[in-house]
Amino acid sequence: MRRIAILAEGSLEWHYGKTAVGVIRYAPDTTVAVIDSTRAGQDVAHALGAPVGEGIPVVRDIHEALHYEPDTLLIGIAPRGGALPDSWRWQLLAAIEQKLTIISGLHMFLSEDPELSAAAAQHGVTIWDVRRPPDKKRVAEFRPHREGSHTILFVGSDCGAGKMTAALELDRLAQSRGLSSSFVATGQTGIMISGQGLPVDRIIVDFVAGLVEEMVLDVSDRHDWVFVEGQGALNHPGYSPVTLGLIHGSAPDAMIFCHKAGAMTIEGYPHCPLPMLNRLIAINEEAISWIRPERSCKVVGITLMTSHLTEEEAYEAIRQVQNETGLPTTDVIRFGAAPLMDALNQHFS
Amino acid sequence: MRRIAILAEGSLEWHYGKTAVGVIRYAPDTTVAVIDSTRAGQDVAHALGAPVGEGIPVVRDIHEALHYEPDTLLIGIAPRGGALPDSWRWQLLAAIEQKLTIISGLHMFLSEDPELSAAAAQHGVTIWDVRRPPDKKRVAEFRPHREGSHTILFVGSDCGAGKMTAALELDRLAQSRGLSSSFVATGQTGIMISGQGLPVDRIIVDFVAGLVEEMVLDVSDRHDWVFVEGQGALNHPGYSPVTLGLIHGSAPDAMIFCHKAGAMTIEGYPHCPLPMLNRLIAINEEAISWIRPERSCKVVGITLMTSHLTEEEAYEAIRQVQNETGLPTTDVIRFGAAPLMDALNQHFS
Repeated sequence: MRRIAILAEGSLEWHYGKTAVGVIRYAPDTTVAVIDSTRAGQDVAHALGAPVGEGIPVVRDIHEALHYEPDTLLIGIAPRGGALPDSWRWQLLAAIEQKLTIISGLHMFLSEDPELSAAAAQHGVTIWDVRRPPDKKRVAEFRPHREGSHTILFVGSDCGAGKMTAALELDRLAQSRGLSSSFVATGQTGIMISGQGLPVDRIIVDFVAGLVEEMVLDVSDRHDWVFVEGQGALNHPGYSPVTLGLIHGSAPDAMIFCHKAGAMTIEGYPHCPLPMLNRLIAINEEAISWIRPERSCKVVGITLMTSHLTEEEAYEAIRQVQNETGLPTTDVIRFGAAPLMDALNQHFS
Repeated sequence: MRRIAILAEGSLEWHYGKTAVGVIRYAPDTTVAVIDSTRAGQDVAHALGAPVGEGIPVVRDIHEALHYEPDTLLIGIAPRGGALPDSWRWQLLAAIEQKLTIISGLHMFLSEDPELSAAAAQHGVTIWDVRRPPDKKRVAEFRPHREGSHTILFVGSDCGAGKMTAALELDRLAQSRGLSSSFVATGQTGIMISGQGLPVDRIIVDFVAGLVEEMVLDVSDRHDWVFVEGQGALNHPGYSPVTLGLIHGSAPDAMIFCHKAGAMTIEGYPHCPLPMLNRLIAINEEAISWIRPERSCKVVGITLMTSHLTEEEAYEAIRQVQNETGLPTTDVIRFGAAPLMDALNQHFS
């Protein structure tokens, strides 16, 4: 297990800090400190205003973080503008000098930065760019999964609708029930948490379905329950090809639908309204039928993100969605994933 | 205008020679010779068994081709196995020594081959790898096209269903009718023909829709009729994400559907049957409605590939499809594109 310091300068809050939240909540590693000079002196839970990371100190910089003896520095936020800020560079160099492993989810690859890679070589340090795609070409072969395995894909109405969280919660619950289960990561935070996976959004479009298929075939050979993190949405103007590649490549046996309660448009696209939930569910079910008409794949349950609502409002939102869709609905964080696991069990029995 | 020699060693026949056929038929350049030692001594039309390239000599190698004074060597076929065969390498080097421009549609980039790039530098020769994607990140912005422009996307039941040919024929016909029209290339052969375009299948999946959108916005600013070459098919197990990126990125006002008469399964996927034509048409129309529910986009006509049929069989196939779908149907090569252009005119009037 690693001892991680997370660099989240200026970003340790609920929306932009989701990598930090995910790693703290789900990684097997211990987060010993979070670097955010704008919130230094608090603990993580206080900075987030949420019950995550109680007692984990928020510190000013890498020097302060080193007091907590991390062996890894994890960068979980994207700098504005894309270039590496100077205030990050010296901290990365300081971490490398102290032989910390560097884990980065940035679009730019730190292992290709001349100064950082030279320092890493000098100190025998590994830089892991989790967004680096495999250097491999594979077109989907349309091969069936192992008989008896169940592949569950998490789809949704938009990015940031809780697909990774739902997949992780279902995997945890399945394991706690003694089932052979695995989480399959497809984005940088999921990969940081599970230590492996495919950065799907960085793959050449011809090979998205093929590389996803290869990964899921491998995991479904070894596990009975395969919970595949979804990405984007079929109704997203920019990222829909990522989602379709995941749907056709992972060839799911069932899906869980993820939605932020009350969302009306695609985030960042105010002129792109979300279709009704039943329509969104039908869209995802249909997309599988295009290549596999003989075996239907259903959405069997829904999870809502309700952290912006009171508990009473959350109950009401869940009740409404349940009435609207006729499907078991929960907020996996607030009310647990059991209704979804039960629905899946019933679906496959 | 270029004087082109085409390297099509072992491949100058109808199915695998489609780049050679496309360039001969549609490029503004003159093809002076085709290199295929297995068919040397014939002319192209005889080698193909089709009325394309009458009088263009098929020659043994680059030395023989040089007698016809080409200024460009174009590689239009993929070698088996992926590596550059030795029998091609010496011919490329000989062409470079004679200062021929090299145009390549290979997956591997010839401009990155040390020996070839050194020779090109020495002789001041350009190597154009048409499959090289732009080094640019752009997520789709969901912006409308210029009012009054018509963007037509060519979709179909599979790869190799005649989408590029149909787009080129419609563009030619529109121009011959005095319309402001442009062909938008999205694959290597189309790019070779038109001298520009986007190798869509080589783009990182996050940016497919965005880069297609940017290109189509630019062309629709300058032309009234924009004929966008399609790729793959929504019902293709491997390439569906390419197709969805083109559909959402190009934001078409209408579509033409392309199909090989009699095809029953996806080529290379015998266990992946094609849905019925009306279902395939509905699938493509629906995919647009996911992000643009308020403005429908229809398939307004169909072109069939019938070159494997007799003329009588072709008529019968077209009649059947017309009855089945209720849409104007033709084979743009055999019977011309006028029924489709007329249908488009009527659709927008």
